[in-house]
Amino acid sequence: MDEFSLIQQYFQRPSSDAVKANHQLVMGIGDDCAILDVPRGQQLVFSIDTMVEGVHFTQDTAPADIAWRLLGAAVSDLAAMGATPNNFTLALTIPELSEPWLQSFSDNLSAAAQAYQITLAGGDTSRGPLTLSVQVQGFVDSGQALLRSGANTGDVICVTGTLGDSRAGLSLLDHLTPDADQQYLLDRFYRPVPRVASGLLIKKYATACIDISDGLLADLGHVLSRSKKGGKIDSAAIPLSPQLKHIAGDKALHWALSGGEDFELCFTLSAENWRLLQRELQQAEPGIALCEIGVVTEESGLQIFQDNKWQAVTAQGFQHFSNE
Amino acid sequence: MDEFSLIQQYFQRPSSDAVKANHQLVMGIGDDCAILDVPRGQQLVFSIDTMVEGVHFTQDTAPADIAWRLLGAAVSDLAAMGATPNNFTLALTIPELSEPWLQSFSDNLSAAAQAYQITLAGGDTSRGPLTLSVQVQGFVDSGQALLRSGANTGDVICVTGTLGDSRAGLSLLDHLTPDADQQYLLDRFYRPVPRVASGLLIKKYATACIDISDGLLADLGHVLSRSKKGGKIDSAAIPLSPQLKHIAGDKALHWALSGGEDFELCFTLSAENWRLLQRELQQAEPGIALCEIGVVTEESGLQIFQDNKWQAVTAQGFQHFSNE
Repeated sequence: MDEFSLIQQYFQRPSSDAVKANHQLVMGIGDDCAILDVPRGQQLVFSIDTMVEGVHFTQDTAPADIAWRLLGAAVSDLAAMGATPNNFTLALTIPELSEPWLQSFSDNLSAAAQAYQITLAGGDTSRGPLTLSVQVQGFVDSGQALLRSGANTGDVICVTGTLGDSRAGLSLLDHLTPDADQQYLLDRFYRPVPRVASGLLIKKYATACIDISDGLLADLGHVLSRSKKGGKIDSAAIPLSPQLKHIAGDKALHWALSGGEDFELCFTLSAENWRLLQRELQQAEPGIALCEIGVVTEESGLQIFQDNKWQAVTAQGFQHFSNE
Repeated sequence: MDEFSLIQQYFQRPSSDAVKANHQLVMGIGDDCAILDVPRGQQLVFSIDTMVEGVHFTQDTAPADIAWRLLGAAVSDLAAMGATPNNFTLALTIPELSEPWLQSFSDNLSAAAQAYQITLAGGDTSRGPLTLSVQVQGFVDSGQALLRSGANTGDVICVTGTLGDSRAGLSLLDHLTPDADQQYLLDRFYRPVPRVASGLLIKKYATACIDISDGLLADLGHVLSRSKKGGKIDSAAIPLSPQLKHIAGDKALHWALSGGEDFELCFTLSAENWRLLQRELQQAEPGIALCEIGVVTEESGLQIFQDNKWQAVTAQGFQHFSNE
């Protein structure tokens, strides 16, 4: 395993400006542990995520895409808490020492880290089937983290961005010469952008939040279940991109509801706060798109309005949407 | 992957007393992130470690042994910083949903966590070749962490416990009916005990510290290299267990120097502090064994006194000890 310690050199690149600016990270790579100062009045929030070759990505996925997707998906968990990213660790298991692979992966991981303002603080490298685990760590004002459990009856249910794009991208992985719309959807799959700015914005207003990794229906279900509430959503209100509608046709809604890995945020807030949030949004944050899709109900269970009637969403697979 | 979320149930066991007593862990398993309060005046120290089937353990290793070894090795990194363990996350990649495997693994992980006073704070489960990553997190008084880089010329070099036992245990994995000595060495391999109490004790006195995972010579080399110093050690002073001497014969010293995975601590401190530490040890900590093995030198390079002469230890594999 000695040679594997050489791999560390790929990740110990000269400190970028982003790294230098991380005054909280007292010790990064190079000792038995990293050391972090958590600012007074803030809490540490953290989450670990794994991607496995053949499960989360195919064998021919470019290391650049693996790096961006790995970090984007992981940072999304911080966004869902309304947290500010600070640092991450990487447990990298690779079958062989491929310099081109390592160079491209580490270059892109570094670029993604800079884009998301997060610093590599440590890691471990092993030989084995390609498996990547990332733990992301961030800060939130004490007691202010957005949980899944705070939704109240009558709250508006909202989402960021558009849904279903990532699932559409997944269906296009074999396309060697994608057109512009297809490339857009492929990028949405390979390079999900964590909604950190949205999370920080909505934190003041939202009662509950989750990032959409398993699909809107499943993840909204988690929020409602943890909050001991139910919900009603309107299928006509689900935000769909023009690219998705063009490429997916009549599968668009199904993919938006159940596709997963969009890494948009789904959150709840009072109607009053929804008005305030929309006003703040119009004035200050042109890059953030928010959309109202439904309402939290006192009775448990999730219903969706489609084909001119309310339909119950079942826990197992939402079979009545299985027109795939 | 839906079924895999069921796995979470194995790790969401009713809170033990140890978990309940963890007032710093505000939110554990169940949301997008865990939330941690870091006590005022303390820093967070953290490290991620991976074990892969076929690399770090054989395919027929019992899940109980995997659990204890995984957590013991990981917590050892906290011990090496002089830190107090607080919580950990687990990224578990498993090829199939085996209930007996999961039950035994999670039972033993829970027992190990209780033994090392550390709380499972979150995790992620994936399907794939058996791979386990653990990130451990602990606290240390701000500015008081034991680094690898502080050794001074003239410092005494010390180790905890005995060395080489784990490597001897590795050589015995095929023994179906081990005798008492063999079982002792197998236990040292499968269930390394992180030297948390030793780390906390020596923190007041030591100038540098590392846990011995790659072997004494390699890990002491890391300390000396980071401290920009050299060192001299006496082969006759290396602590060997009676069990190792009995089983390993003339390989005992080689295994103690280069075997690795003992997860004992190697540390440096001034001669004056070494006297003070020994005095404190005699009075208060009968369970902790410390042993002086050498001295830090101004000139770089590591030398060992053996066969009545000083021999240079080379960086690549210490070939002159390769009588294995």
